[in-house]
Amino acid sequence: MSRTLPSKNEFIDGILTGNRMLLSRAITLIESTKQKHQDLAQEVIEGCLPYSGNSIRIGITGVPGVGKSTFIEAFGNHIIENQNRTLAVLAVDPSSSKTRGSILGDKTRMETLSNHPKAYVRPTPTSGSLGGVAQSTRETITLCEAAGFNTILIETVGVGQSETAVHSMVDFFLLLMLAGAGDELQGIKRGIMEMADAIAINKADSGNEEAAKRAMAEYKSALHLFPPTESGWIPKVATCSAVHGKGISDIWEIVDAFVRHTKTKGFFDKKRKEQANYWLDEAITQELHRSFYKNDELKHMLTQIRRQVQDGEISSYKAARILMDRFLG
Amino acid sequence: MSRTLPSKNEFIDGILTGNRMLLSRAITLIESTKQKHQDLAQEVIEGCLPYSGNSIRIGITGVPGVGKSTFIEAFGNHIIENQNRTLAVLAVDPSSSKTRGSILGDKTRMETLSNHPKAYVRPTPTSGSLGGVAQSTRETITLCEAAGFNTILIETVGVGQSETAVHSMVDFFLLLMLAGAGDELQGIKRGIMEMADAIAINKADSGNEEAAKRAMAEYKSALHLFPPTESGWIPKVATCSAVHGKGISDIWEIVDAFVRHTKTKGFFDKKRKEQANYWLDEAITQELHRSFYKNDELKHMLTQIRRQVQDGEISSYKAARILMDRFLG
Repeated sequence: MSRTLPSKNEFIDGILTGNRMLLSRAITLIESTKQKHQDLAQEVIEGCLPYSGNSIRIGITGVPGVGKSTFIEAFGNHIIENQNRTLAVLAVDPSSSKTRGSILGDKTRMETLSNHPKAYVRPTPTSGSLGGVAQSTRETITLCEAAGFNTILIETVGVGQSETAVHSMVDFFLLLMLAGAGDELQGIKRGIMEMADAIAINKADSGNEEAAKRAMAEYKSALHLFPPTESGWIPKVATCSAVHGKGISDIWEIVDAFVRHTKTKGFFDKKRKEQANYWLDEAITQELHRSFYKNDELKHMLTQIRRQVQDGEISSYKAARILMDRFLG
Repeated sequence: MSRTLPSKNEFIDGILTGNRMLLSRAITLIESTKQKHQDLAQEVIEGCLPYSGNSIRIGITGVPGVGKSTFIEAFGNHIIENQNRTLAVLAVDPSSSKTRGSILGDKTRMETLSNHPKAYVRPTPTSGSLGGVAQSTRETITLCEAAGFNTILIETVGVGQSETAVHSMVDFFLLLMLAGAGDELQGIKRGIMEMADAIAINKADSGNEEAAKRAMAEYKSALHLFPPTESGWIPKVATCSAVHGKGISDIWEIVDAFVRHTKTKGFFDKKRKEQANYWLDEAITQELHRSFYKNDELKHMLTQIRRQVQDGEISSYKAARILMDRFLG
């Protein structure tokens, strides 16, 4: 960011008229660790908030190798070309510094979308804690919606806590799988299957169609064992071949049916309000933690006390109280 | 607690020699909201800590009607009589004021155990937040272990966040189910099945044996779809009839196999240390929240600001920062 910074109003006006250069620069501000950038970013976000919210937010996860990029490319093009929607693609990957290339690090993996006038692909920020990345992703959603994108795809990898974060910022959560049920789940963390509003078994092509169908039946029967979601939506299972564009429209139909189902019953807005509540409490906790853990004296005490707690020399509650007395003085 | 309070050393000595009256009074101190009681309780806990830890901690959950009390009575008697162990039975049920009777509120539901010299049954505290109840349950575990109980059963109902709390304080987590897969899961919250180290299908009696076997096969195949646990333990499924004492010893065998499996590989202690870490961080967060949320001025601000966040008038992060500025003043 060596150029002169635009003003708050230049950013807001630019974003609201769909200026991608200003949108991208504003997102860079969000991701910046400099206080000056953060302060300006917050003003821009506040200015964009009244124009945000009018979108369908979709989370997509699956282990590396499941074909996420190809799927998003095919799915995104369908959304734009056949559904006449606009699309922003974001990613949450707190570990991206280690796994570069596995997620949106490389824009060229989504060549068509990256160059499409109705799409906006934002590469993953290169580093940051999950809390930080989750916050900047939520703020980025606000800006993208204010810029007029009415479909938001958020990609993440199925190997960490990031699914929980993404799950609590989207309306619909899609899990990508491969056929050969069982083995390929190794990389997916426990609990993620239960978050899915739909499972899509990808690579149902090249002689793999029957295996994919069998996997579909297995997942359907497994999902049947899970208790129903609050809205009464039953998670759907489908097969697709992203590389051949097969089954992609069916998956959009599922998303569309989900949105209609939850909007009719008021669950769509209810979930958004719950998510807002959740993120407020998360933000409060995060701010409390920040002021606590950034304290150098406490840091040193905590290291010692953590060892004592692990060794059963002191209870966690007494430890916490000792630390708190020091913190609040 | 109208009698004179014993001293810290009287409590500790009494507990270490297995004096139940003093154990019970110490637990009552733990559950008390009076500062004086809390302070004494903490000293007693610290004194007992070096003598704690040498037990198998088992969490048991299942919806009301699954037969938890009968199961615990049968399972507990097997543990005591055939395994030559000692047993303390506790419960986590933050909603117990509303659902009294569904959980250990009524000691007489476990008549044999309650009167057995090698068992100790502690009724549920009548009220409290989940955080508070979880804390006092963990502290009660410490005292029971110091009192010489080498098996701890912690009962909870499968309808809330309490499973997560219990799961993070036990070595082994058992989910009780009924046959007729699908329907009876309605009451079990999403995600709980994935926490289970074993599922026991109860009431496999009175002509229900075949249905229970079918349910067992279904759950086995569903569990197979879940990714493996860190230790490589594959969750087991068994049938039992608590009321007829059938299959109870098999379930103990599963617990025993689990403990041997995880101890051989170092996962048993690793998990305990992770749990200690987890509870230290939880305790820190809880203390931070307590000092934040007990602030009356902030309470009022928070109510207003929460509405603004829900309505999209202010971002959750800006809201948190405004509140934090006021808090740390």
